[in-house]
Amino acid sequence: MAKACAMLLLAGAARAFRGMRSHHMARPSRTILGAASTKLSDPKAFLDDIDVFIFDCDGVIWKGDSLIDKVPSVLEMLRKLGKKIFFVTNNSTKSRKGYKGKFESLGLDVEPEEIFSSSFAAAAYLEQTEFKKTGKKVYIIGEVGIEEELDLIGVPYIGASSDNDKIANMKPGGKVEPDLDIGAVICGFDRDINYFKIQTAQLAINENGAEFIATNLDAVTHLTDAQEWAGNGAMVGAIKGCTGQEPTLVGKPSPLMIDYMEKKFGLDRSRICMVGDRLDTDILFGNDNGLKSCLTLSGVTTEEKLLSAENKVVPDFYVDSIADYLN
Amino acid sequence: MAKACAMLLLAGAARAFRGMRSHHMARPSRTILGAASTKLSDPKAFLDDIDVFIFDCDGVIWKGDSLIDKVPSVLEMLRKLGKKIFFVTNNSTKSRKGYKGKFESLGLDVEPEEIFSSSFAAAAYLEQTEFKKTGKKVYIIGEVGIEEELDLIGVPYIGASSDNDKIANMKPGGKVEPDLDIGAVICGFDRDINYFKIQTAQLAINENGAEFIATNLDAVTHLTDAQEWAGNGAMVGAIKGCTGQEPTLVGKPSPLMIDYMEKKFGLDRSRICMVGDRLDTDILFGNDNGLKSCLTLSGVTTEEKLLSAENKVVPDFYVDSIADYLN
Repeated sequence: MAKACAMLLLAGAARAFRGMRSHHMARPSRTILGAASTKLSDPKAFLDDIDVFIFDCDGVIWKGDSLIDKVPSVLEMLRKLGKKIFFVTNNSTKSRKGYKGKFESLGLDVEPEEIFSSSFAAAAYLEQTEFKKTGKKVYIIGEVGIEEELDLIGVPYIGASSDNDKIANMKPGGKVEPDLDIGAVICGFDRDINYFKIQTAQLAINENGAEFIATNLDAVTHLTDAQEWAGNGAMVGAIKGCTGQEPTLVGKPSPLMIDYMEKKFGLDRSRICMVGDRLDTDILFGNDNGLKSCLTLSGVTTEEKLLSAENKVVPDFYVDSIADYLN
Repeated sequence: MAKACAMLLLAGAARAFRGMRSHHMARPSRTILGAASTKLSDPKAFLDDIDVFIFDCDGVIWKGDSLIDKVPSVLEMLRKLGKKIFFVTNNSTKSRKGYKGKFESLGLDVEPEEIFSSSFAAAAYLEQTEFKKTGKKVYIIGEVGIEEELDLIGVPYIGASSDNDKIANMKPGGKVEPDLDIGAVICGFDRDINYFKIQTAQLAINENGAEFIATNLDAVTHLTDAQEWAGNGAMVGAIKGCTGQEPTLVGKPSPLMIDYMEKKFGLDRSRICMVGDRLDTDILFGNDNGLKSCLTLSGVTTEEKLLSAENKVVPDFYVDSIADYLN
């Protein structure tokens, strides 16, 4: 009975979150045919309008292993002006603390609290839905980043690297022992994905009613500079394919991040600026969620593409790089 | 240039096949609200109308590890009457020859040519699309069944069990060496699925334009009787998730099987009967493809469910088991 109540409570909270999400997503995006993109010409006026900067990392802060020119000065200037800064990444393999090392390796000093990794987003979602009250545990497909973030919020878990070498007993009569205490499956990038993990997640979701949570859906990722690599879309796709269920998405482009900031820090959406190098993800995300948006040309999008008649996604401003904020 | 022509040829053949499929799928199914299901009362008249029987196996021929009562007599009778018989299975882990063992273990003597496994369906599709003319090879996610069927048609392949223990080089600058000669990825059930295989398939499809072929999309499968197991939906889902592409499906419910039989044996669709125990797969498949359909109650569907107002899928006939054909 207590279990049933806890389940209902969790389901209610999850529904509330989804409702919130669809409400915010319902706002039409600034995708008016022919709307002009505006090059940032008055950085001071722009900065006066913004309290919070959310930076996508790759193509904005760094490109591959190189820091983009003048980024340290930009961050220093923003901090001096009292702006809040968040760095958002769909990388779930590291915790916020672990991801800090990437910044340090490029000579940037940031606080773990300024990093919004999808591993953290998964933990934040469990807090928002009061998962702890269910008394259940999480099954992790993923790496140490998710484990570390769940440790910080005191939610028990199994799976992840502990199951890297496990082999399901598929002899006649054999089975993977189902764990009835699994209340949620968090699926993040896992370079040691195997059939045992897939079967454990399948049993938990299909037979145990565990919630299916995806840190992100990125088709490809950048494990090395030498080629594109299959991303967490593969791991999530595997679980979708054997359960027929769509996951609750917590990383970009889920608005969980914005809901979290709004509640935790009492922020005003219209004074948050999403800064990214991709029109169809970063800028669309900003526009759809009532934020200001700023495209930087220091990543994958060219000015030609931005200004072309085919492009329907219009940022509030665009810059050559965030160094333009300095002028 | 020769390569480009071959690619075009393959693409054309694939398109032709897809066109053919959608044409057959366009025929409205017998799903009229309130249409009555007919219990088979005159087996002789029924048998006179049918030249070919396509039997789903589980729930029709056997249930788990037990043969369904009187099946050997039914098959003997059908053979004596000169009927063609096919046994269809979405199991891709065995070739037709390998699957014969399952029949033998139950005391049934069938020819490999009477078995339509999804491993064979993949090979038949490559023949239909003249894959050999491309001079390319296949990358297999899957088990020995697909390897054996490709051996029979002389199409070269890599992957499958050879890649079970491979680990991608993910150190800085590391990569999985792309094989530019891969012209198609066949994805079947693979209990040794790993990240190396997923990445190899991703590179072949995303960067090399290889065709993505799925033997089947079953969410769950019956590796053992002790529980349901994650099926090939998981492996296919992983590749969908990192490529954003939908596969060409060759197993049930793809009509490839019917196209193949029609061409190879000059069969008349209206004299083929699909016999199965599932309304939403077997019977729907028969109805949508212009075949006769017969539901058997010896599997998962009850008479109550069949005759309920909610059921919209109506077979031409239904029987308690195929033993009813004897009377």
